[in-house]
Amino acid sequence: VVLGKVAVVGAGSWGTVIARIAARTVPTVLWARREEIADEVNTRSRNTRYLPGVVLPEALRGTTSLAVAVAGADLIVMAVPSHGFRAVLEELASALSPGTPVLSLTKGLEQKTHARMTQIVRAVLPGSPAGVLTGPNVAREVAEGHPVATVVAMSDSLAGIDVQQLLRTDSFRVYTNQDVVGCEIAGAAKNVIAIAAGISDGLGLGDSSRAALVTRGLAEIGRLGVALGGDSLTFGGLAGVGDLMVTCTSHLSRNRWVGEQLGQGRALSEILAGMQEVAEGVRTADPLLELAGSCGVEMPIVEQVAAVLAGSKAPGETLSALMTRSAKPEFHEVGT
Amino acid sequence: VVLGKVAVVGAGSWGTVIARIAARTVPTVLWARREEIADEVNTRSRNTRYLPGVVLPEALRGTTSLAVAVAGADLIVMAVPSHGFRAVLEELASALSPGTPVLSLTKGLEQKTHARMTQIVRAVLPGSPAGVLTGPNVAREVAEGHPVATVVAMSDSLAGIDVQQLLRTDSFRVYTNQDVVGCEIAGAAKNVIAIAAGISDGLGLGDSSRAALVTRGLAEIGRLGVALGGDSLTFGGLAGVGDLMVTCTSHLSRNRWVGEQLGQGRALSEILAGMQEVAEGVRTADPLLELAGSCGVEMPIVEQVAAVLAGSKAPGETLSALMTRSAKPEFHEVGT
Repeated sequence: VVLGKVAVVGAGSWGTVIARIAARTVPTVLWARREEIADEVNTRSRNTRYLPGVVLPEALRGTTSLAVAVAGADLIVMAVPSHGFRAVLEELASALSPGTPVLSLTKGLEQKTHARMTQIVRAVLPGSPAGVLTGPNVAREVAEGHPVATVVAMSDSLAGIDVQQLLRTDSFRVYTNQDVVGCEIAGAAKNVIAIAAGISDGLGLGDSSRAALVTRGLAEIGRLGVALGGDSLTFGGLAGVGDLMVTCTSHLSRNRWVGEQLGQGRALSEILAGMQEVAEGVRTADPLLELAGSCGVEMPIVEQVAAVLAGSKAPGETLSALMTRSAKPEFHEVGT
Repeated sequence: VVLGKVAVVGAGSWGTVIARIAARTVPTVLWARREEIADEVNTRSRNTRYLPGVVLPEALRGTTSLAVAVAGADLIVMAVPSHGFRAVLEELASALSPGTPVLSLTKGLEQKTHARMTQIVRAVLPGSPAGVLTGPNVAREVAEGHPVATVVAMSDSLAGIDVQQLLRTDSFRVYTNQDVVGCEIAGAAKNVIAIAAGISDGLGLGDSSRAALVTRGLAEIGRLGVALGGDSLTFGGLAGVGDLMVTCTSHLSRNRWVGEQLGQGRALSEILAGMQEVAEGVRTADPLLELAGSCGVEMPIVEQVAAVLAGSKAPGETLSALMTRSAKPEFHEVGT
């Protein structure tokens, strides 16, 4: 299948990087909420605010009109933060041809409903194949052409292969995976674990402490994902371990950074006020806990992060709560 | 069971840290090859060469006599490099009470036989329970009291619980695991993957590239481990993901550092000449590949590392060989 037009909805760093890749081979429109970003894409082939120093293809067009962006598109790539996801999708729905596939780049859960982004797609656009692109991908590093790997999981595997063909470059290796649920849970939850990893860093603990925490975090993510019908393999792959590793160790990770600032004693409101892009983990902790509770899965690390974010526990207390539990076999949570 | 005496054989940084923990509660002897280290342990309660700045318990005794070290010991902790493991074990065998458990801290495979360390124990001391201590543990960080977790896997689970009780402290959390094979393969192989991660760093690639490489590395380690009878859960736990993460990202990791130097174009001989402790991954790559070959498991990353170590490929070539393979489903190697 040859795609005739791609619409990327959301012009943050990651949306812009994906639009830049798509525009090499297919006419691509990038929707931005801000006029000045759409203008800059059109007149200077740049997005200085979110991707300074990176030149975009001239063929990439910017717009602030959702209708213009999605009209006639064969693929919608959603790259808005989770809290705006449903509203934007509802707004663009009427301009869309029925059955147009929607690929989410957003890693989070909706407040209150604790819906995954593809569940929102299914609710708003029942006829559209829905899926996610996820993996250990720092936007700036992908833009710089470092060799990187990612995963696409679509409910319709032909649409998945289209996305793979569209986005694959010499340096951006796109794997397919059929496990939409697992990929999405892994992507949402890793941001919360990254806050825990950052707290560990902010408290001045070392690489060993952080690795133990992240490993236990992976276990709790996997338990939830499998309980929701995900495939346990996903959590050992690029969308699981890979993304978790990069988000929990990279100095470019926003969620890790938020945790680090918390660990150093700064207040959440002050930290967030100084940030340019959303740290999804801050919003994801609560719906993630609710979701876990609804299927009887314990997520002790997420619980501690939620308590710190709510201001009900000091960062130092949470880590000692996690580390001083009684000695056990490592996999005692695994049934039989 | 109450242990009456512990012998730690090998006074490198990790052996010394474990001896320090054991000596808090049980009479412990630390065997050092070098006279000056044994002396310094006895007279100044320090091991300045391998663990500068750390004070050891006065109760910890140093010796250069294997017979003195192991006589009457209820537990032998082996902390010598893999290339000396069998010879040291053979030398101490006659001084040992039959059936004394042996715990290995060594992460490697024997040259030519590609035996795991516990296989060497079984060959030399057929009546002794054998096992490993492994996990994301940077020696210095454990010594500094950071909260850290580790795994003990013993062929005799009662002996495993003894070790757990002996080494557990408020900050050193010891989990039991019954999968000796998986723990040992994970520990040996991660050092080779860490060299690959270091090569990526040395070539100036970013966190995303490294995470993709390490994730693929985890997959090949897991394939080998399962083929040898290990439990796939192990590779997602502290001995697998956890140790891999810390070894592949920490600036304190010797194997990662060797890879980084290789990636920057330095010669292996020159790199090794400047090192104080062994980087086991350098020796492990070949026996690991042979072992994988003998059970029909592909380890493409280990293969590339072995080629770089042998000087038959340039670091830059190896990474492009790994990243430019054709697009596939992520878990195509996993049989149905």
